[in-house]
Amino acid sequence: MAVCEYCGIDGYYGREIVETEHWIVYLAPSQRYLATCVVALRRKCRDLSEVNNDEWVEFAVVVRVLESAVGELFRPDLFNWSCFKNSAFRSENPDPEVHWHFIPRYSRPVKFGGEVFRDPDFGHVPLPIEFRAPDAVMDELELVMRRAVGECWGDVLEED
Amino acid sequence: MAVCEYCGIDGYYGREIVETEHWIVYLAPSQRYLATCVVALRRKCRDLSEVNNDEWVEFAVVVRVLESAVGELFRPDLFNWSCFKNSAFRSENPDPEVHWHFIPRYSRPVKFGGEVFRDPDFGHVPLPIEFRAPDAVMDELELVMRRAVGECWGDVLEED
Repeated sequence: MAVCEYCGIDGYYGREIVETEHWIVYLAPSQRYLATCVVALRRKCRDLSEVNNDEWVEFAVVVRVLESAVGELFRPDLFNWSCFKNSAFRSENPDPEVHWHFIPRYSRPVKFGGEVFRDPDFGHVPLPIEFRAPDAVMDELELVMRRAVGECWGDVLEED
Repeated sequence: MAVCEYCGIDGYYGREIVETEHWIVYLAPSQRYLATCVVALRRKCRDLSEVNNDEWVEFAVVVRVLESAVGELFRPDLFNWSCFKNSAFRSENPDPEVHWHFIPRYSRPVKFGGEVFRDPDFGHVPLPIEFRAPDAVMDELELVMRRAVGECWGDVLEED
């Protein structure tokens, strides 16, 4: 399996933040853009065409929860979403699977866990350049993300 | 208004291919990746969080129709989808609006309208480098895209 540009590690999407009926949200190993996550479908689909309506509607909830949770935590200026799957095609037998990249974007540096996170590409497409935060920072990020997602989940479902 | 990296022209998404209740599909002015389209929401939303369930379910139909139509026309190897809105933040008063980039990706050159379209970035993230095809080629592309989308629409709705 080829390494996904944004996911960062061979066959590994990151630390699990939350699991829903159809999707799993991971904190991406590469944090060039603070709070970058991967949202992976829990069954194998090659193309978005194969995602069914129930999965789409639940994805919409995941979008609202993540944008709300990360919005409250770090106040990014906007969110980039993409479903690319390009890296799978660098393998000899491509076996792509539907997963989304959730990439918050920042016009200013953000301090978290003693680190300063910058978005050197703000206003432009996100670059697949790996940036690893120290393990202790990732531990703390996982913790605050889990908590914020948990808190937003009820609010979003209530509004729905 | 800043120029969107993939859309190519200031405040202009391209030639209209089809309009649905909630979305408009445009053939993007830049065709670095043959059959690149923009799918724009017909009301102003800043974030995907604001897109409602009816709009998501209709977006799922647009995804199936576009992947099916372009799949039959040009046999790309995969499709990239993204909702970025970064370019809006290069303006002094950012005014982003939800629109999707549909970018078919090709492992081989494809001939169309006397031109050869290549995907020099296959297996990697799509680059926002403008490539303009001659007007006559764009006219023909618009025509075959309109026809293919029209033909696929009924099939997708029947399966739904």
